[in-house]
Amino acid sequence: MIISPDIIVSLIDHTLLKSYATKDDIIQLCHQAKKHKFKAVCINPSWVRIAAQALTGSPVQICTVVGFPLGANTTETKINEAIEAIRDGANEIDLVINIGLLKGNSPDLFFQDLNKVIKAINSENSGTVIKTIIETCFLNPREIVAASKLCEKAGAHIIKTSTGFGSGGAKVEDIILIKNSISANTGIKASGGISSLDLLISMYNAGATRIGTSSGLQIIREINEKYSSDKIT
Amino acid sequence: MIISPDIIVSLIDHTLLKSYATKDDIIQLCHQAKKHKFKAVCINPSWVRIAAQALTGSPVQICTVVGFPLGANTTETKINEAIEAIRDGANEIDLVINIGLLKGNSPDLFFQDLNKVIKAINSENSGTVIKTIIETCFLNPREIVAASKLCEKAGAHIIKTSTGFGSGGAKVEDIILIKNSISANTGIKASGGISSLDLLISMYNAGATRIGTSSGLQIIREINEKYSSDKIT
Repeated sequence: MIISPDIIVSLIDHTLLKSYATKDDIIQLCHQAKKHKFKAVCINPSWVRIAAQALTGSPVQICTVVGFPLGANTTETKINEAIEAIRDGANEIDLVINIGLLKGNSPDLFFQDLNKVIKAINSENSGTVIKTIIETCFLNPREIVAASKLCEKAGAHIIKTSTGFGSGGAKVEDIILIKNSISANTGIKASGGISSLDLLISMYNAGATRIGTSSGLQIIREINEKYSSDKIT
Repeated sequence: MIISPDIIVSLIDHTLLKSYATKDDIIQLCHQAKKHKFKAVCINPSWVRIAAQALTGSPVQICTVVGFPLGANTTETKINEAIEAIRDGANEIDLVINIGLLKGNSPDLFFQDLNKVIKAINSENSGTVIKTIIETCFLNPREIVAASKLCEKAGAHIIKTSTGFGSGGAKVEDIILIKNSISANTGIKASGGISSLDLLISMYNAGATRIGTSSGLQIIREINEKYSSDKIT
């Protein structure tokens, strides 16, 4: 499938979630996202206000993470963190599921945790894009299907594969599995280890509608090589 | 230095922080901690209530983590998470520092973040043991010294080396560096990769007053081999 540079950059959540990222790193990330017209920056919650300042008047979305990366926080903590992030300027929330509740055969508790957080987000701002991270590396295929269906039922707009802090990242077969578990209205964010244009395109072709990567600049370099007549500077 | 089995087990925070741990895993961890007389269990916040039930009437402390493992949450989120954990039954809080504020040369903001959370914990329950995790693997020696001093000044009772989710765990040289940066009243928790009795003893000899490990049962087996006349079953 042919994919234009414009579409490629519009898929990318330009990501910096390292614990040791500084204010200057975050501001630089925001400037890169504006320059290359990435869809969003994806940053930790303590930097949302800084990013909101750096991106004032820009179409770049501000995505932050909640219950990240383990998801084993209380529902109340996830709600507080999400609401504060929205008030600080976030318009996209990547929320980690409680994997232990899923694996412990507590689908009702698992659903309630997600549903309560998503309802609270919608009450605060119904325009917030909500992605739920299911951390595929720790799930078997049956669990990936169950998690995807329950996330969609709980109100997630996008199912996201990975935190980037687990034992593995996005895989084409997992994207296909997720796609076959949800409706066409729900998106898929592939994330974790997508360090090249080839990997990005393979995820897109499998069904990913959003790409989380910390290799945005590398991907821009590869686009420039591949599409030399239509150079993105 | 000779160290008795009784002292060894009294140092150990019996730890299970994997995102995919289930309720049954947590209950089992609590039973193991009671049986072997470990100092504490160390678990994610969503399991504190379960652990509090499983450990009712036991001397085993309930330790949970706040802002874990990245520390890049807002101060408000850390405060909310800590207060809720105490209300759920936690009596020890392992709080991750904001590494980006330290590295970004914002010692005042770094200190304020910690100090506000610690004050809020003390207001809720002045008996709560507060450990601050400085994540030594991402710090240079100068930063380890600065972080240790600022944590102590902010009111931490114990400086903890590692989350176990970074690029490395506790090192003897880091324990010595921390020890030389703080007063004798402040403890040191060595954590991350302490998978054997030998490693535990080397950390203790360097100055660690607490050991965080998910290898408690392995260490018990080694104690039984080493101290066969005084077997811990």
